[in-house]
Amino acid sequence: MSKKNFYLAALLLSLLGPASAQNDDSVTIKRIANEIMARGTAYENLRHLCKKVGPRLSGSPQAQKAVEATYQMLKDAGADTVYLQPCMVPHWVRGEKEEGYIQVANGAKYQLKLCALGNSEGTGKKGLTASVIEIKNFEELDRLGSDVIKGKIVFFNYPMNPTYIRSFMAYGESGAYRTRGPARAAKYGAAAVIVRSLASNLDDFPHTGTTIYNDSFPKIPAVAISTNDAEWLSKQLMRKMVTTAYIRTTSTMLPDAPSFNVVGEIRGTEIPGEIITVGGHLDSWDLAEGAQDDGAGCVQSIEVLRAFKALGLKSKRTIRAVMFMNEENGGRGADKYLALAKEKNEKHIFALESDAGGFTPRGFGLDMPEEKRQKAMAWKNLLYPYGVYELTAGGGGSDIGPLKQIGAALAGLSPDSQRYFDLHHAATDTFEAVSKRELHLGAVNMAALIYLVDKYGL
Amino acid sequence: MSKKNFYLAALLLSLLGPASAQNDDSVTIKRIANEIMARGTAYENLRHLCKKVGPRLSGSPQAQKAVEATYQMLKDAGADTVYLQPCMVPHWVRGEKEEGYIQVANGAKYQLKLCALGNSEGTGKKGLTASVIEIKNFEELDRLGSDVIKGKIVFFNYPMNPTYIRSFMAYGESGAYRTRGPARAAKYGAAAVIVRSLASNLDDFPHTGTTIYNDSFPKIPAVAISTNDAEWLSKQLMRKMVTTAYIRTTSTMLPDAPSFNVVGEIRGTEIPGEIITVGGHLDSWDLAEGAQDDGAGCVQSIEVLRAFKALGLKSKRTIRAVMFMNEENGGRGADKYLALAKEKNEKHIFALESDAGGFTPRGFGLDMPEEKRQKAMAWKNLLYPYGVYELTAGGGGSDIGPLKQIGAALAGLSPDSQRYFDLHHAATDTFEAVSKRELHLGAVNMAALIYLVDKYGL
Repeated sequence: MSKKNFYLAALLLSLLGPASAQNDDSVTIKRIANEIMARGTAYENLRHLCKKVGPRLSGSPQAQKAVEATYQMLKDAGADTVYLQPCMVPHWVRGEKEEGYIQVANGAKYQLKLCALGNSEGTGKKGLTASVIEIKNFEELDRLGSDVIKGKIVFFNYPMNPTYIRSFMAYGESGAYRTRGPARAAKYGAAAVIVRSLASNLDDFPHTGTTIYNDSFPKIPAVAISTNDAEWLSKQLMRKMVTTAYIRTTSTMLPDAPSFNVVGEIRGTEIPGEIITVGGHLDSWDLAEGAQDDGAGCVQSIEVLRAFKALGLKSKRTIRAVMFMNEENGGRGADKYLALAKEKNEKHIFALESDAGGFTPRGFGLDMPEEKRQKAMAWKNLLYPYGVYELTAGGGGSDIGPLKQIGAALAGLSPDSQRYFDLHHAATDTFEAVSKRELHLGAVNMAALIYLVDKYGL
Repeated sequence: MSKKNFYLAALLLSLLGPASAQNDDSVTIKRIANEIMARGTAYENLRHLCKKVGPRLSGSPQAQKAVEATYQMLKDAGADTVYLQPCMVPHWVRGEKEEGYIQVANGAKYQLKLCALGNSEGTGKKGLTASVIEIKNFEELDRLGSDVIKGKIVFFNYPMNPTYIRSFMAYGESGAYRTRGPARAAKYGAAAVIVRSLASNLDDFPHTGTTIYNDSFPKIPAVAISTNDAEWLSKQLMRKMVTTAYIRTTSTMLPDAPSFNVVGEIRGTEIPGEIITVGGHLDSWDLAEGAQDDGAGCVQSIEVLRAFKALGLKSKRTIRAVMFMNEENGGRGADKYLALAKEKNEKHIFALESDAGGFTPRGFGLDMPEEKRQKAMAWKNLLYPYGVYELTAGGGGSDIGPLKQIGAALAGLSPDSQRYFDLHHAATDTFEAVSKRELHLGAVNMAALIYLVDKYGL
């Protein structure tokens, strides 16, 4: 950079905001950071949620246990009021032990590391045997059509692209094969679908996640296999070594079950009618402890409240920490939260979601009108010392998304994404894979952003 | 930000560099990134170094095995030449099984999770028993002096400060009690020293690391205990429940042993006499696989060479990947590298070190004159898409530090530091704690910086 540019940069910085206000704010944010980094309870709350409650899919007894546990955590954090929002949730069950194998041409059976996809229907107790065809992408599926696909097990083998530095981009691309693959294969008469797990690494753990059927076609069984198995299967198919595949799953969708969002509130001292939401989702897939997805977002949201209370920070507006139920396979908690907000004619000015893991924070995605975004962008230098340097357009998250309808500005925490899809929706998403300092540093930035939005509005 | 500021920012960006050169460079860097993220071998090389070679303290048979293994890795990476630089290294050994316990007032013995500090002398086979005094800091030690300290085991209990967001700052602060504590306590006649492990988390693993004796005072035995034990011991001392401590270590320093730096080179096509070094250190502590410290830096440096070769990128200057021996307890490899450079009158324009772990990259520290730093800073937007956003003054690293004497500009990779001191110098520094994508993303940024320095000079 030339000297001229250097002065321009200095000028630019000086125009970013009134220096004294920024100084006061940096002192308060440092207090918040010290409180959370030295005395935060998010990590121990997460341990409880992972180890004492465990996997907590919507409708399961553990989901109810998670409701009760976080209710207590919000009480302990010092929330002025804690309450439940009843909602009905889909109740999908995995059923009995699932299994599958490949019948190899030499007579051997190769056991697959597999799991039924979320919301999928099983094969029935007798299982299902058919020949397997590997499909690289939807174009190939459409080109082959019913003539080739009918009666076969379609194996979608679309790896996550390792060259995308932001791994969510790769997830977005490959994700279509899990969410839409079974429905699209059913259209051509496929007997069942095997998808390569949406995972960024090669290992032996299958990754589950929702698939979405199309009501016009049969609800065919759908499983994910581990990435190692996908590599193996692809190789064997190329060598013409695969005779048939056998899959047995007994998963099914039961009638809707009652459940709850859990809400803890600090009542605003000046404008209590204006609501700021910070949340994560309480449900997790049944295979995992749901540590990064999304126990992290829950305990971070509770931590925001705890830090305000511990420091005696008064918020002008009402701040709510919300544990949304049923993000993974229905979004009913989010729908309910919006419905109640509408019913009570609440004014929601801002909502922040953490549902990308409790990894070291890098930024916030800001989904709000340009004018508000510019206001938020001016706080960037206040967050910079805590690892957040990137405030980008777009973001938010699926649980707070509906609040856009009633005018809320939205934001989503963007942690580093390199490790997330190694463990997402798999048995490897455990408490041990979470770093206390990373988790707490995310909470620091969330609390700082909430503090600024509360103080200055948006 | 106001509209006016927005235009100023745009203007600033436009002045940062010639747009077309930056565009060519961004294309090449994207090629480098694709190569490393999709086909990089750093992770598998690290697996070999951790699992097939293992702990590799200077002078040990495993250190020699590591020399041979990385020699082959550099060959496989396609280096034009690979060679060894012989150097003599300190040969410290831990000796027989070490142990220690606290004799509690109620008659119980509490076994400590401890390890001798690196370079420390042991108690001898019979061990050593004495009363324990907790010392909070050096001021307290000096205040109490010989009258109180003489004959006692000094327990330095100085935790890493969790409120430092950059954890290396906390390490720098607490580190003095490990490196200088035993010598300072020996001055007052202490019988031995126990230090609280330099760890950012609470667990049961002791963390070793070098201590430095003062030749004017006795070389008293020195051990680290786990942070959980430090918390326990402090509590028991406060309750007056500690009678004595027993420590038994048989560590000692043997005569210097022969070892090597391992160097792989790509010969420059235009200015081969100008040398660019990229390196990490090959030795590790004996308790750990040395995955993050510093197997990561070694395999990343090899990966830089491999990517250049795999993509057919010609470097104008000579690029050397160097596996420095003996960073942990002597720095003899670094000294030797400098001595040979001086002897051969080499021109070293730039050296880059990775010795802060293979975590997700955030920046580079640049230790070089202001004019060169400004030149390097202008490349910031080229690295930004790969997670590096922070180019700061200072940095480098202890293995390349000596090259400053002969005019080299230095840089150090700055990965995220939240997890490093959970495992640094402890048995938890294993291959499993490394993320492939994080490790490779660090190598991407290292290769990109080397590419830019080679192309434009510094």
